[in-house]
Amino acid sequence: MSKTPKAVLLLSGGLDSATILAIARDQGFAVTALSFHYGQRHDRELDAAEAIAADACERHVIVDLDLRAFGGSALTDDIDVPKGRSVDDIGDGIPITYVPARNTIFLSHALALAEVEGAETIFIGVNALDYSGYPDCRPEYIAAFETMANLATKSGVEDTGRVHLATPLIDMTKADIIRRGLELGVDYGETLSCYDPPLGDELAHCGACDACLLRKKGFSEAGVSDPTRYALY
Amino acid sequence: MSKTPKAVLLLSGGLDSATILAIARDQGFAVTALSFHYGQRHDRELDAAEAIAADACERHVIVDLDLRAFGGSALTDDIDVPKGRSVDDIGDGIPITYVPARNTIFLSHALALAEVEGAETIFIGVNALDYSGYPDCRPEYIAAFETMANLATKSGVEDTGRVHLATPLIDMTKADIIRRGLELGVDYGETLSCYDPPLGDELAHCGACDACLLRKKGFSEAGVSDPTRYALY
Repeated sequence: MSKTPKAVLLLSGGLDSATILAIARDQGFAVTALSFHYGQRHDRELDAAEAIAADACERHVIVDLDLRAFGGSALTDDIDVPKGRSVDDIGDGIPITYVPARNTIFLSHALALAEVEGAETIFIGVNALDYSGYPDCRPEYIAAFETMANLATKSGVEDTGRVHLATPLIDMTKADIIRRGLELGVDYGETLSCYDPPLGDELAHCGACDACLLRKKGFSEAGVSDPTRYALY
Repeated sequence: MSKTPKAVLLLSGGLDSATILAIARDQGFAVTALSFHYGQRHDRELDAAEAIAADACERHVIVDLDLRAFGGSALTDDIDVPKGRSVDDIGDGIPITYVPARNTIFLSHALALAEVEGAETIFIGVNALDYSGYPDCRPEYIAAFETMANLATKSGVEDTGRVHLATPLIDMTKADIIRRGLELGVDYGETLSCYDPPLGDELAHCGACDACLLRKKGFSEAGVSDPTRYALY
């Protein structure tokens, strides 16, 4: 009997990370989910992450970070999240919702946790097609992180397994991601994508921020209805 | 008049980081120091970092991390710090004081702060000669981090300056570092290197952990006396 492979998986509570969790489990991984309090505007995505992880993960680690100490993003500062722009403009330039070095900080923690747990695979739901223009979602970034990660850790100097970054969504459209998730039984009603969800309406989406626009476009192109509620438009 | 260049500098409060701060200032940088509470066994090195930063830095940012959530190191867990081994054995294998992915997590935060502050240089006091056998102190690791960093941030997609990791100590012996620091006026009495300093004796060193052994060897080879006190031996 072969040993169940272990993975650490970055779980934001959004549509993409819920889908990679289903993919990781379908591939036979025992998953430790990793989420962050990072001074985001709302904690509702962590509630979603907890609900998604509950029956699907061996362990769910939530780490406190204080990215507000640095500032520089609409997601962590008191800057308005842009709303209502054309979905075709998304990905054109780096938006104000970019959090400096966020994926690098998240992946660094995942790397530490993977080393402690003896996991050789780190899942991250980055996507280079229907993405928001963040530099740290591109394949060349992921490849460079993997190279660095294997020099950073014991695997770089001892004869242990190499660390691999698994990015199953990287070449998929949002519609492809939704179709694959539905095949695997993902309940997208549990997920929260919105950067700025309306107060007092659990798991409802604003419908107008970049993340909502990409989500709506994805469900529309996949030809299925989105189980969430949208507050606007 | 040219603009004063900005740097972010990882300041632990130890001998090496105090020296790179003096070097960065000598090179004309306006320095933002970055230190971490990371569940280390004692906070005395942060007291040392604050004393060292007080007059030498534009800003000193202290970030809370919870590396204890992961475990796996004598520096963050209730595991005894090894003491009294031969200094010649240091660097032979990865010691139990290794904290998984620590420098990667530290540098990731430095990268975020550098991006927010518009600093193009990150100083880190790693040293590949008189080092403790940590994989994330080697030049090939530093080079890989720099490559990744320039893909991770705005500099990777917009026409802004590249991020550079400055490692002025990387090829120096501990004795060289001490000599250079003394030339630049570093007060090594303010620094704390010890992994496990004796309780109730401010800034005194145990004298027997790997960090103390390397420090003592350095002062001995530099032919100068160490202004700190050692509790043992």
